[in-house]
Amino acid sequence: MGLTIAEKILSAHVVDGTFEKGNEIGLKIDQTLTQDATGTMAYLEFEAMGVKRVQTERSVAYIDHNTLQSGFENADDHRFIGSIAKKHGIYFSRPGNGICHQVHLERFAKPGKTLIGSDSHTPTAGGIGMFAMGAGGLDVAVAMGGGAYYITAPKMVRINLTGKLRPWVAAKDIILEVLRLLSVKGGVGKVIEYGGEGVKTLSVPERATITNMGAELGATTSIFPSDEITRAFLKAQGREEDWCEVKADDDAVYDEVYNIDLSAIAPMAACPHSPDRVKTIPEIGKLKVDQVCIGSCTNSSLLDMMKVAYILKGKTCHPDVSLSIAPGSKQVFQMMAQNGLLADLIAAGARILECACGPCIGMGQSPNSKGVSLRTFNRNFEGRSGTADGQIYLVSPEVAAVSALTGYLTDPSEVLGEMPAFTLPESFLINDNMIVPPASEEEMDSVEILRGPNIKPFPVTTPLDETIEAPCALKVGDNITTDHIMPAGAKILPLRSNIPAISMHCFTVCDKTFPERALSLKQSIIVGGANYGQGSSREHAALAPLYLGVKAVLVQSFARIHRANLINAGILPLTFKNEADYEKIDQDDVLLLKDIRKTIENDGEIVVENVTKGIQIPVSCDLSGRSKDIILAGGLLNYTKQQLG
Amino acid sequence: MGLTIAEKILSAHVVDGTFEKGNEIGLKIDQTLTQDATGTMAYLEFEAMGVKRVQTERSVAYIDHNTLQSGFENADDHRFIGSIAKKHGIYFSRPGNGICHQVHLERFAKPGKTLIGSDSHTPTAGGIGMFAMGAGGLDVAVAMGGGAYYITAPKMVRINLTGKLRPWVAAKDIILEVLRLLSVKGGVGKVIEYGGEGVKTLSVPERATITNMGAELGATTSIFPSDEITRAFLKAQGREEDWCEVKADDDAVYDEVYNIDLSAIAPMAACPHSPDRVKTIPEIGKLKVDQVCIGSCTNSSLLDMMKVAYILKGKTCHPDVSLSIAPGSKQVFQMMAQNGLLADLIAAGARILECACGPCIGMGQSPNSKGVSLRTFNRNFEGRSGTADGQIYLVSPEVAAVSALTGYLTDPSEVLGEMPAFTLPESFLINDNMIVPPASEEEMDSVEILRGPNIKPFPVTTPLDETIEAPCALKVGDNITTDHIMPAGAKILPLRSNIPAISMHCFTVCDKTFPERALSLKQSIIVGGANYGQGSSREHAALAPLYLGVKAVLVQSFARIHRANLINAGILPLTFKNEADYEKIDQDDVLLLKDIRKTIENDGEIVVENVTKGIQIPVSCDLSGRSKDIILAGGLLNYTKQQLG
Repeated sequence: MGLTIAEKILSAHVVDGTFEKGNEIGLKIDQTLTQDATGTMAYLEFEAMGVKRVQTERSVAYIDHNTLQSGFENADDHRFIGSIAKKHGIYFSRPGNGICHQVHLERFAKPGKTLIGSDSHTPTAGGIGMFAMGAGGLDVAVAMGGGAYYITAPKMVRINLTGKLRPWVAAKDIILEVLRLLSVKGGVGKVIEYGGEGVKTLSVPERATITNMGAELGATTSIFPSDEITRAFLKAQGREEDWCEVKADDDAVYDEVYNIDLSAIAPMAACPHSPDRVKTIPEIGKLKVDQVCIGSCTNSSLLDMMKVAYILKGKTCHPDVSLSIAPGSKQVFQMMAQNGLLADLIAAGARILECACGPCIGMGQSPNSKGVSLRTFNRNFEGRSGTADGQIYLVSPEVAAVSALTGYLTDPSEVLGEMPAFTLPESFLINDNMIVPPASEEEMDSVEILRGPNIKPFPVTTPLDETIEAPCALKVGDNITTDHIMPAGAKILPLRSNIPAISMHCFTVCDKTFPERALSLKQSIIVGGANYGQGSSREHAALAPLYLGVKAVLVQSFARIHRANLINAGILPLTFKNEADYEKIDQDDVLLLKDIRKTIENDGEIVVENVTKGIQIPVSCDLSGRSKDIILAGGLLNYTKQQLG
Repeated sequence: MGLTIAEKILSAHVVDGTFEKGNEIGLKIDQTLTQDATGTMAYLEFEAMGVKRVQTERSVAYIDHNTLQSGFENADDHRFIGSIAKKHGIYFSRPGNGICHQVHLERFAKPGKTLIGSDSHTPTAGGIGMFAMGAGGLDVAVAMGGGAYYITAPKMVRINLTGKLRPWVAAKDIILEVLRLLSVKGGVGKVIEYGGEGVKTLSVPERATITNMGAELGATTSIFPSDEITRAFLKAQGREEDWCEVKADDDAVYDEVYNIDLSAIAPMAACPHSPDRVKTIPEIGKLKVDQVCIGSCTNSSLLDMMKVAYILKGKTCHPDVSLSIAPGSKQVFQMMAQNGLLADLIAAGARILECACGPCIGMGQSPNSKGVSLRTFNRNFEGRSGTADGQIYLVSPEVAAVSALTGYLTDPSEVLGEMPAFTLPESFLINDNMIVPPASEEEMDSVEILRGPNIKPFPVTTPLDETIEAPCALKVGDNITTDHIMPAGAKILPLRSNIPAISMHCFTVCDKTFPERALSLKQSIIVGGANYGQGSSREHAALAPLYLGVKAVLVQSFARIHRANLINAGILPLTFKNEADYEKIDQDDVLLLKDIRKTIENDGEIVVENVTKGIQIPVSCDLSGRSKDIILAGGLLNYTKQQLG
């Protein structure tokens, strides 16, 4: 029986467990990446493990999230990360060098290798044929220390692409089509592989746009084959030697197969407030636009910028529209400054922002009240833009640029003429002077770690209690995102290395009183609906509840990374056996998990007693051997210390 | 008797009072400018007056302060300003078009004309021979409505420049030398005029650097002659017709004359935390640098950027230094993108920020804790950078750029070779597509004003009470800046159009409990030392105390603009007749101004009774006829309404 791309890479990397669907498997991780919002905590965790030098082939620490620096915290964190990277064998990408996923794709990602990153859009590197996953910071710390990364062996989904995109239809529209097809829950527990003749019509940056936003499907990862197009891209990056062919066998077996005819796709937009609320432009109708933002790890490649500059050249953005553009990397930015594209953007009135995540994570450029903002980004969760009632639509760079000119959501093919051929250069401008290599083995001990006052230690965790009795401090509905649990944005992100401070913002999007209430309760339980914890990989969505005394989270279903983060934090992840039982708990009901430690140890049936209502509710926990040990130990850090000790 | 430049322009613009030193005179204002942090309030005030269309020759509304947009407030304010500008005959410079003073110099400033702006660095236009002053927003509103702007006829200071700067010594070093000579109080009540043969060695942008930072002398304004160099600059801007010659008569009489030999000046820095703590680089010694920021209305011209790019070209900024660069205007930015300078900056690792005030006003790029930051800006007040213990040094672009490479405060002439000739182009790239003209007289009535929820009305003021009895709610020392009174920075600036909210930050730099205490006291008095209210023109430093119930401010001496803002807000500005009496009041002492209304009306002697201590303290108020009427009416808005009604 033939193998899928994922099966080939995974089977070559399994170091623990048996590679069978549904099993937990431990994977050797070749590369890691961190960004700064999750990175400070990941490196504090790495430090706590006591490993001197990273054991991976390549680990890179990027600064791309907290780049506004409205206070001392960000600069302190950058210096902390820079110094700890230097000391422990990690490459450091300085602020201004670009967005982690864009730079990693350009300079480090390798076909056939494994990568985990403390950012949910790490699957961007799947565009180059790498098996790349978002993970919690603690998982990344363990992988840097040489430990395996554990996942449930995923189901395999194949998406066959046929035909060729029509002019002015973009890779972004392909992934929007996939989101429309599968929804934000459609990828949970699955790897999305792309194949078929249509793949050959897509460049590496276009493929990366698609795998990047596979995160919004909830997928374990998304991956493209590594082919001659991949080779040409790596050659143009001066790294042809990093190339190898990666492809599925012709007789590979998939759990699900979908076919998409590229020529049938039209420009689309994901409507507020979910990436899968996808409609075509005529379906949305004439929509007046207040803001357009172009950039982010989804759409900030040179190819994207070439198209945007072509559309804007010689024009002026509509007087009612604020247009911002952030190139994805220093490489892209410098090439644009050299070849005149940047001058075209500036001339058209674009506000050029630093190469960083920026508005995509609510780091500036919040739209006006009730403002309609078209963004080439990957997420449009409510409030993520920094404006509570902002109306965010996710679109391709082509739709964004043309709408910035007309002032309305516009199909580019309706106003633009023939599309010229946009081709990537045969060689990119290579200048890695903003990537600082680590100190040598001889020099590493003398590197001083620079610690600012914003850096507080990891919260204390304790082994699982014998019995948990605690009130339901909060009941929430379906599709709760990590932005609900632990909001980001310009005001909160600088606190990522300060758990006590950031915890006071936990769930405040849903209920302003939650942090105070949870703290005063000392122990509590959260109840939620389906797809709980979708969105980003931020482990702070587990660490803040941990700090606030949350002992268990009981929901209809979990998003993968968040469930893993809860386990890593030592918080029990429970699911209703009968989804309808969700109705049997109200906020403030006291819940009892009697003899929970013994029950978990013995794989017994877990029952939650609603003490207030006198109801018994059967629930599942589904902990494999290792996850079970982690929960019993009170989290991954305790567990890893036990293992190392 | 011959006339000075200032005397010529002022005498041509006096519309009220007699032009004699020390007299209050009302001036016809030809042009106004606002920025967004002060502008929302200025336009609310203009609107409250009920004038349909501005009466000036040219009024321009710029967006350059609140450009980070960490929340809905900024974008709402931009739209409000854009719409009200369109309705009332004001040109609107869109976000991204650049810093008000740089753009105004390029596109609008005219020799021989008068300008007031709701920003203390409005004297930048003095570099082109314009009589340009910072003013409160309410003053600007009155001027837009056709009213006069009142100042005390200033003393005249002449600074004769001889010789020529040595290579790698800059215009910035000239104004630092002037600050060393005169101190931050040295310009109070004075106009600083530059003359002598050395003037001919300075381009318009260099002159503008000097007049810009004249604000730090406390001067009414600073001004250069308008000569053939000015003409060439205006010609290169496509506005030769705006040129006229402006020069002092040979026999003009000055109150003070200073001589500066340009060839004797060395590169210098203003040390923390005052622009007049000026030392040479050897005097400071080897200072390790954490951050370098280049830009701001002081040093962001094309000429500045040419020098910086020359120094950085082919190099990499030091690994321990974060280097940010913000060009001053879209014109500068686009020219740099076209001629390759921008590519050189990006290649060297500079973080390119949007054309805006940015880090100069604490809007991002706060340094690390205790971080040493070299900045080409104009102010280094404590905490203004957003980092409470940041150590800010003000330097030239040349010193900044070279130090970014070495990692230490460095004299460029020590590491650079011969200096090439840096010359401005014969024609600048002219593209005003981001300046939106106002609606025509026919269309103006149909323009809808866009008001977001952040825009709250002007606080209520009442006519001066018969008697004031109130405690001293706060006692502060010398050189209190408007940044102490009303801090700015990324977190507070977005509240500029919301007085109730922003008032809760008033004086919190000095005393966190002040706003709550003042509110609970209902009425209070502030006591301070010399040069109270130096720094920016922000009228919020008067409006927030007004909102908090401050009835009078009693100090040893006032900075000019702040005193005017207090009067405009209807707050009594009092000075000790004997400076030593400052010691006779402690915080919380109850102070009594018995029959103060009658005393002011009759120009009587004012005595403050310290009720707590049983001491009589003689004080001055020095209100001229018009200022007196404003105070009696309860502020300029009430007064103007009375006048118009």
